[in-house]
Amino acid sequence: MQKRYLLAPGPTAIPPEVLLKMAEPIIHHRNPLFEEVVQEVRDNLKYLFGTKNEVLIFASSGTGAMEGAVTNMLSPGDKAICVRSGKFGERWANICKAYGVESINIDIPWGETLEPAEIEKTLKANSDIKAVYIQATETSTGAKFPVKEIAAIVKNYPNTLMVVDGITGVGVFELPMDEWGIDILVSGSQKALMLPPGLAFAGVSDKAWEFNKTSKIPKFYFNWAKELTNLQKNQTNFTPAISLIIGLRESLRMIKKEGIENVYKRIEILAKATREGASALGLKIFAKSPSPAVTAIYAPEGIDGQKIYKTLWQKYGVTGAGGQDQLKGKVFRIATLGYADKYDVITAVSALEFTLKDLGYQFEMGKGVSAAINALKDL
Amino acid sequence: MQKRYLLAPGPTAIPPEVLLKMAEPIIHHRNPLFEEVVQEVRDNLKYLFGTKNEVLIFASSGTGAMEGAVTNMLSPGDKAICVRSGKFGERWANICKAYGVESINIDIPWGETLEPAEIEKTLKANSDIKAVYIQATETSTGAKFPVKEIAAIVKNYPNTLMVVDGITGVGVFELPMDEWGIDILVSGSQKALMLPPGLAFAGVSDKAWEFNKTSKIPKFYFNWAKELTNLQKNQTNFTPAISLIIGLRESLRMIKKEGIENVYKRIEILAKATREGASALGLKIFAKSPSPAVTAIYAPEGIDGQKIYKTLWQKYGVTGAGGQDQLKGKVFRIATLGYADKYDVITAVSALEFTLKDLGYQFEMGKGVSAAINALKDL
Repeated sequence: MQKRYLLAPGPTAIPPEVLLKMAEPIIHHRNPLFEEVVQEVRDNLKYLFGTKNEVLIFASSGTGAMEGAVTNMLSPGDKAICVRSGKFGERWANICKAYGVESINIDIPWGETLEPAEIEKTLKANSDIKAVYIQATETSTGAKFPVKEIAAIVKNYPNTLMVVDGITGVGVFELPMDEWGIDILVSGSQKALMLPPGLAFAGVSDKAWEFNKTSKIPKFYFNWAKELTNLQKNQTNFTPAISLIIGLRESLRMIKKEGIENVYKRIEILAKATREGASALGLKIFAKSPSPAVTAIYAPEGIDGQKIYKTLWQKYGVTGAGGQDQLKGKVFRIATLGYADKYDVITAVSALEFTLKDLGYQFEMGKGVSAAINALKDL
Repeated sequence: MQKRYLLAPGPTAIPPEVLLKMAEPIIHHRNPLFEEVVQEVRDNLKYLFGTKNEVLIFASSGTGAMEGAVTNMLSPGDKAICVRSGKFGERWANICKAYGVESINIDIPWGETLEPAEIEKTLKANSDIKAVYIQATETSTGAKFPVKEIAAIVKNYPNTLMVVDGITGVGVFELPMDEWGIDILVSGSQKALMLPPGLAFAGVSDKAWEFNKTSKIPKFYFNWAKELTNLQKNQTNFTPAISLIIGLRESLRMIKKEGIENVYKRIEILAKATREGASALGLKIFAKSPSPAVTAIYAPEGIDGQKIYKTLWQKYGVTGAGGQDQLKGKVFRIATLGYADKYDVITAVSALEFTLKDLGYQFEMGKGVSAAINALKDL
């Protein structure tokens, strides 16, 4: 008997009540019953994204909405800033490249902090930047970026959009679109929304809809203007991922019932306890400004990070994540977003202690869980 | 108490065993457990599509794979034939237009038969046609197109691809890619595959992969070459729709266990019984060459087709479909693909009799079900 604990930065564990809702007989989408579901989901997505505007829903991975945030806003030859400090920042630049947008890259060593002043400097040096593309959390490094401060800067540039990949940010910490001036906020279903992957979201500001009017990059499946027209009628442009939207209704209800501020507080404490548990074992946290979504932890010297991740998974039942690309072997990751509670953190830190003991690392057993439980006492 | 029967041309009913598999705790995709699932699914998709080549899997609606069949093969300014004889044929032309491909449209009145000679004539009149885009079944009209005959013609044109939208065809009737010379065969999850919507598929021939090498339309999310590289490692380019792929493994197992030839035979008989039931009530079938996937039936004179569809659904528990676009009010549709058996057809024809009686149509009650049951006796 081995119970399994999913603490990866996506997919995250799905609440049984959501799984069972999605297991009910499917309903047809061109039907008032489904339109009721869409109406409720529209309202609650606005609450979650902190916007009065519509949040578009796509049948795709989060990357589909990232692509749309380029193809629906810009034209070939346009310039955009892409902050690259991990696998997903690189994706913004790759999307721009694929569609003929000149990406002015701000490269930050993985795990380092992004200084808002860098953005300001680059905007000033180039008068014709059409958009700034950043991550809320860089999932590959566990770093959190100062979205609020950057948005405050970009707000002063009427010809520049502030676009945030919130795939590992929305529902994890506050990212109120309208209040902060985020023009496009992208997310996906398999993170804080506690659903299987297969849905992508994009909140779109009035300013962004203005940009959309002149965008000349071709698009069809991810045509946001057509999607908006359909959504306002509680429909989607093409056949929606019905079962995932049924699940979304449930998970949004759960989030609303807990209260979004309480969700943020819970995840913040869980992440802090994870960091303190790891630190008490003598391990170092990778990111300078760690995100509450996911904690990337350095493997101790002489121990392969992939081995830690694999032992956690195979022998101790905890699915975290390894390092990606240049971090492979150097770090392992434990996520705390979504359907996670204090016992999940205690489980993860316990599994980490068992694993490190197996791999020959020297430390005092119990020090990690002690630190974690102390950090969790206010939850 | 009202039991519900889903007999729409997508989504179709999902077998309980598939629903329950998808309701199990989710697993992570960068993981050997998931890679095993993908390996099995790859093998069985090849069986279903009748090809030795890989069948690509996307997290999107079927339309995403239709788009990819244009953007991964052609370049702006290329010419393609689009057969337009319903809502989905028009979609091919709209996708071509969105990406700067000149679409030479063969317009056939909705519900009429497509003559292969028309394709040959158009190919001869234009020496530089890069692709022929058609439907296997035009879902909006219930018409079946002569794919085999058209493929045999296109095969003689080394610079022209034969592309088939098999969203309402794959798993319904035979469309063996390699044997017939279909270069791209597109499908979706919510039809014969008995799954929720959210997965799209594309079988791709060697000839099509050659076209891919010179295609200049920009793409990122639907980049087929990158998807192929990942699939060969039992992965996907971006986060896959994990739960749907888990469900796909089950539904493909069910299809394989029944035997694909038996599936085709079953659906053929169910559709024939539906047509005979409707005909016995004095109703006319809309399509000249009706598809076994879905039967579009003319509303009798003086009765609104939308009223028939709505009464079937609201009062009698059977979800079929209404008419789309120019057929709205003129026809209603009952599907027989996917998880449908003989009792579903008897139920549908019974519900139709109740409905028509309610709406004041004159006929002898029981004549429809009698005809249907007679047509079903060999199943």
